[in-house]
Amino acid sequence: MSKDAHAGSGGEAEAPLYDTNVATPTHGERARTLLAGIRTGTLSTLAKEPAGYPYGSFVTFAMDGAAPVFFISDLAEHTRNLRADPRASLLVAESVAADPLANGRVTLVGRGRRLDAGEERDTARQAYLAVHAGAAYYMDYADFGFWRLDVLGVRYIGGYGRMSWVEPEAFAAGAPDPIAPHARAILDHMNADHGDAMLAYCHAFTRATDATAARMTGIDRYGFELSAVTGRGPRPIRLAFPAPLESPEDARRELVALARRAREQSA
Amino acid sequence: MSKDAHAGSGGEAEAPLYDTNVATPTHGERARTLLAGIRTGTLSTLAKEPAGYPYGSFVTFAMDGAAPVFFISDLAEHTRNLRADPRASLLVAESVAADPLANGRVTLVGRGRRLDAGEERDTARQAYLAVHAGAAYYMDYADFGFWRLDVLGVRYIGGYGRMSWVEPEAFAAGAPDPIAPHARAILDHMNADHGDAMLAYCHAFTRATDATAARMTGIDRYGFELSAVTGRGPRPIRLAFPAPLESPEDARRELVALARRAREQSA
Repeated sequence: MSKDAHAGSGGEAEAPLYDTNVATPTHGERARTLLAGIRTGTLSTLAKEPAGYPYGSFVTFAMDGAAPVFFISDLAEHTRNLRADPRASLLVAESVAADPLANGRVTLVGRGRRLDAGEERDTARQAYLAVHAGAAYYMDYADFGFWRLDVLGVRYIGGYGRMSWVEPEAFAAGAPDPIAPHARAILDHMNADHGDAMLAYCHAFTRATDATAARMTGIDRYGFELSAVTGRGPRPIRLAFPAPLESPEDARRELVALARRAREQSA
Repeated sequence: MSKDAHAGSGGEAEAPLYDTNVATPTHGERARTLLAGIRTGTLSTLAKEPAGYPYGSFVTFAMDGAAPVFFISDLAEHTRNLRADPRASLLVAESVAADPLANGRVTLVGRGRRLDAGEERDTARQAYLAVHAGAAYYMDYADFGFWRLDVLGVRYIGGYGRMSWVEPEAFAAGAPDPIAPHARAILDHMNADHGDAMLAYCHAFTRATDATAARMTGIDRYGFELSAVTGRGPRPIRLAFPAPLESPEDARRELVALARRAREQSA
């Protein structure tokens, strides 16, 4: 077997310091969360000239439930392409990590459909204006219209080595993580002011009993991640919440309760 | 005729305050410049399943002359797609303007080709490593390879209402602007320290003779742009350099010389 970059950087196997049965977001949920937080992507359509070539174009979009919607000009290249052949995909990529390939991205493959008057158009309009308020300015131009991508396939790549095709049904049934828009602020707050609590989590609830410090590196509705400084170097930890969070207030309450339990346990 | 967003925001016609025959970069040059400054884009390929659907994926790339080159895994979806059908495109978009649709973007349509041993592979490798030094780490993995997109079509969109198909020959013959990587620093410097010189340019070389202030808003090898505060509000100005610049030192020299001429003229 050849060396395989997808397998990570190698090194000896080492048992994780936490219970890996802990709940984590599914790829479908991660995809929904990613899409809910980003407003631009690449629409791939089939070019009329040179015929059949895939043509990528920059688009703004919004999610109307589990389907992306667009407000695009009839004169635009991609719109002409969609009129001739509805087959399309939308790629949406995060741009948070310094290493570009460590960023998450989602490709939604499907069929484009123009939304004329009716309820679908109304909800698309509402969803689009909610994240692209500036579009109100040209909302009534006669040569612009709402389009929806009816999703047939979902490809999720969460960075190196974490990727899958997601069943469209699972994708549609999921929901964006309600904590995601607040995650950065929660991490900053925890890392600035609550190193002691995170160290207590490590000592009470993980096998990182020799940890001397811990930083929060991620949080979602199901749990959170720490990087614990152990005698063997930094090690990842994941701990679950007792029930999925619905708001940042839930996160605060659960993190405080967890610190109390950790201290009771070690007392 | 319907209202047309592409025509801009309307308003009465007004003669520009500068000589609009001034040299400006061609769309081919703008496209080359944009591509030289960005390292990631969307590769659109043709999916095997569902067959024939355009499939967008996130890629890192480098320009090897006028062709983008990629270093991608044989296991990746887009690579499998290219092996089955070489038709592809690469979309690359700026992300500088707050209004996403005001950003420049380029789509290169062409045919993907794997570069095996030989000179083409060597120059691709060199070009790729020059901008993705981290790739040296997995450069020798057996399941990664260099690919090149042989460009057949070039679509340039420079923001609202500035777009065209560029002839591939013109695209190939152009060169990235040598000033672009330094433009931000030059603008910051001029706007911080040389408002007087820019006002002198307006008074001496344009019809903005009542200008009370001016800011530099853009610079390229052929000239620079100002926003002049006139009695009728802010107005755009473009002035040319006597010859295309080759370096930021050229820019400094020409901007100083122009200030001297402006002051001599008004003395």
